[in-house]
Amino acid sequence: MENRLKPMDAEQLREYGHKMVDFIADYYKTIENFPVLSQVEPGYLRNLLPDSAPNQPDSFQHVLDDIQAKILPGVTHWQSPNYFAYHPSNSSVAGFVGEMLSAGLNIVGFSWIASPAATELEMIVLDWLAKMLKLPEDFLSAGQGGGVIQGTASEAVLVVLLAARDKVLRRVGKDALEKLVVYASDQTHSSLQKACQVGTTSSTAVDPLLSLGKIAKSNGMWFHVDAAYAGSACVCPEFRHYMDGVEVADSFNMNAHKWFLTNFDCSALWVKDRSALVQALSTNPEYLKNKASQANMVVDYKDWQVPLGRRFRSLKLWMVLRLYGLENLQCYIRNHIKLAKHFENLIAQDPRFEVVTPRIFSLVCFRLLPVRNNESHGNKLNHQLLDAVNSTGSAFISHTVLSGKYILRFAVGAPLTEEKHVNAAWKVLQDKATSLLAESL
Amino acid sequence: MENRLKPMDAEQLREYGHKMVDFIADYYKTIENFPVLSQVEPGYLRNLLPDSAPNQPDSFQHVLDDIQAKILPGVTHWQSPNYFAYHPSNSSVAGFVGEMLSAGLNIVGFSWIASPAATELEMIVLDWLAKMLKLPEDFLSAGQGGGVIQGTASEAVLVVLLAARDKVLRRVGKDALEKLVVYASDQTHSSLQKACQVGTTSSTAVDPLLSLGKIAKSNGMWFHVDAAYAGSACVCPEFRHYMDGVEVADSFNMNAHKWFLTNFDCSALWVKDRSALVQALSTNPEYLKNKASQANMVVDYKDWQVPLGRRFRSLKLWMVLRLYGLENLQCYIRNHIKLAKHFENLIAQDPRFEVVTPRIFSLVCFRLLPVRNNESHGNKLNHQLLDAVNSTGSAFISHTVLSGKYILRFAVGAPLTEEKHVNAAWKVLQDKATSLLAESL
Repeated sequence: MENRLKPMDAEQLREYGHKMVDFIADYYKTIENFPVLSQVEPGYLRNLLPDSAPNQPDSFQHVLDDIQAKILPGVTHWQSPNYFAYHPSNSSVAGFVGEMLSAGLNIVGFSWIASPAATELEMIVLDWLAKMLKLPEDFLSAGQGGGVIQGTASEAVLVVLLAARDKVLRRVGKDALEKLVVYASDQTHSSLQKACQVGTTSSTAVDPLLSLGKIAKSNGMWFHVDAAYAGSACVCPEFRHYMDGVEVADSFNMNAHKWFLTNFDCSALWVKDRSALVQALSTNPEYLKNKASQANMVVDYKDWQVPLGRRFRSLKLWMVLRLYGLENLQCYIRNHIKLAKHFENLIAQDPRFEVVTPRIFSLVCFRLLPVRNNESHGNKLNHQLLDAVNSTGSAFISHTVLSGKYILRFAVGAPLTEEKHVNAAWKVLQDKATSLLAESL
Repeated sequence: MENRLKPMDAEQLREYGHKMVDFIADYYKTIENFPVLSQVEPGYLRNLLPDSAPNQPDSFQHVLDDIQAKILPGVTHWQSPNYFAYHPSNSSVAGFVGEMLSAGLNIVGFSWIASPAATELEMIVLDWLAKMLKLPEDFLSAGQGGGVIQGTASEAVLVVLLAARDKVLRRVGKDALEKLVVYASDQTHSSLQKACQVGTTSSTAVDPLLSLGKIAKSNGMWFHVDAAYAGSACVCPEFRHYMDGVEVADSFNMNAHKWFLTNFDCSALWVKDRSALVQALSTNPEYLKNKASQANMVVDYKDWQVPLGRRFRSLKLWMVLRLYGLENLQCYIRNHIKLAKHFENLIAQDPRFEVVTPRIFSLVCFRLLPVRNNESHGNKLNHQLLDAVNSTGSAFISHTVLSGKYILRFAVGAPLTEEKHVNAAWKVLQDKATSLLAESL
């Protein structure tokens, strides 16, 4: 049987790789031409693609043409400067080339020996980031703690929960399993249902960490702090105080893939007692045994996470920190917060709108005020306003419900967003509000 | 506050991207110059990098120089043609450019609306792959089933376990939780400890699926088939019979990132009853609600997995299928199996060695025969042989223990491996065996 396929030819990689770089660079040059929120109908792609895979190879140019003609219309453009929905999911040049290198080396770093650089760079870079966040020293890898990159905050909180559960059960006995309790805010992230997480995703409010931490400690509880979104802001000295109380926490988590220019996925988790993770998650099958691991000379990150396999994700975070540096990253965060403040001021100048919860970082929660105090009609009105704005394709915002009120969320945080984009989005909001209010009279 | 940082400048992306493409293409041109298994000592990188992140940006060229000088020596080269350890972890040009595009678009596809193309392409491509594997029709998305990409087989089996648990508990009542049982082979993957998985990682033996499935069905059990590694071979008609019995399975999993040219991570999971997954894993927080989801018109993959966030991983699988086509992929698999058979023949010609378990796919389990039937000394000898071969850097193999015997594993499956690499590895094995046997006399 002849082997016709040369799937990893260096010169073909060079040729296709260069073409793909140009395709992506051109995408960013034209990103404002696309509707931010994809306007396709459910099932649109099924009609555009064949029912089964081809028997014979297709040309790369055909594939690129299909991406342009068939895939991009179905993409919601998270990297658009007019994207203000959910939360930011930052791409950057540094994060992108870091992802490229990770995909290029394509190692699976489950244990130290499987690629020592993958484990060691991750430990070092998470120490760097811990210092930028002024985390207490016991979260650093030099002591009993250390950091690890998880895919998402959901996964971070899942492993923390397993570690906390096993730690308390070792103390009180396994029969107590059904008596275990998890406390979280009523505004916590939905992943609590799957794992258990503390956070305030809807409004990005900040819990009083120090008071909560003291209560947790005096009751022998594991105290986890989820700063998935807002943690990035805490590299700026003027916002660091929102993390006060982290010194009594057992674990802390921030998503570098949200608002810190590191392409998805990169959720940084630190623990003070890494042995609690290892005791809950370690496996040691014969086929993975090796001298360095058996002698306890190294960290094997497979024992800090649920899956066995893991990508070389520290590369992209390392690139972001090296290619931008702390001062630029602080400027980046401050600029978004300045833009969010600007948006808040625009709202304040229009008496038809109100800011609903105090803005702390770069998320503004606001709404069109109900006409004649009719809250139920107000909710409907804001829902209609959301749909009207998003269906223009010129901006994408999302919503939540707080204390029964339908609220609009304007999350500044895309790397390309400038003041002109915020102004343009506000203009669309005002225009659509005018139309809706006229219709509802 | 001035925003000095332009983190997503299209022309900088173009410049850095092209440089990174050339760096990676050059890496593949020279990959055989590196020791396959990294020869660094634990902690090597800590001495080479600064203690904290820089305040000011560094140049891209400095970073590339550091990758060459400091990172690559610590990499174990899974893409080397002389890599025969653990299991394959295929990179390919198609998989690589697919990863690039996924990182370039950097969307988070938790629900359909968050990027319709991400959900729809995943459904379509997993239908394609299901047809290539001749999976029964009830695994396709047109009926009650469907496919989803998980990160790893560990995650696939975790979600299946949650679905199976909740399904049986709905039938027999929640109080039965402690009575639930999971059956698996004694050679199952280590992730069973964390989730629960059926498989034979050490030797890639194949369980008698049809008999097991009938027992499972007659007892009302969920039957999961894990073909994480060997599933790829089943796109060839002559190997498809190893999957016979999958028609009685509730779920089936194969890792396209192992032996199917799709860069890590890409674990394909199919279920017959997608509602079982959704009932176990669905969350519906207000801030993610949207018309298409509320009207049940779409699939929201967040309800098929543990985390909320997910990457656009179907792009790379789609690229692999389009750019190579079924016939080439079949040739690719057959060539590796032919090379493994060739290695097996080489062993058979050297009376000092034996093949330990029957080779089915591209993994050969073998060992140096103990001298004078001293099994304990034989185990030590094979351990020494493993270390001797791996410390040359010219090939990387791994080991396991089967029935008390220390066994060497030779897994053919790297995209660049040719017959000359297999021959060279065998030569090193023979030479090192000669030295060890001489010493032990």
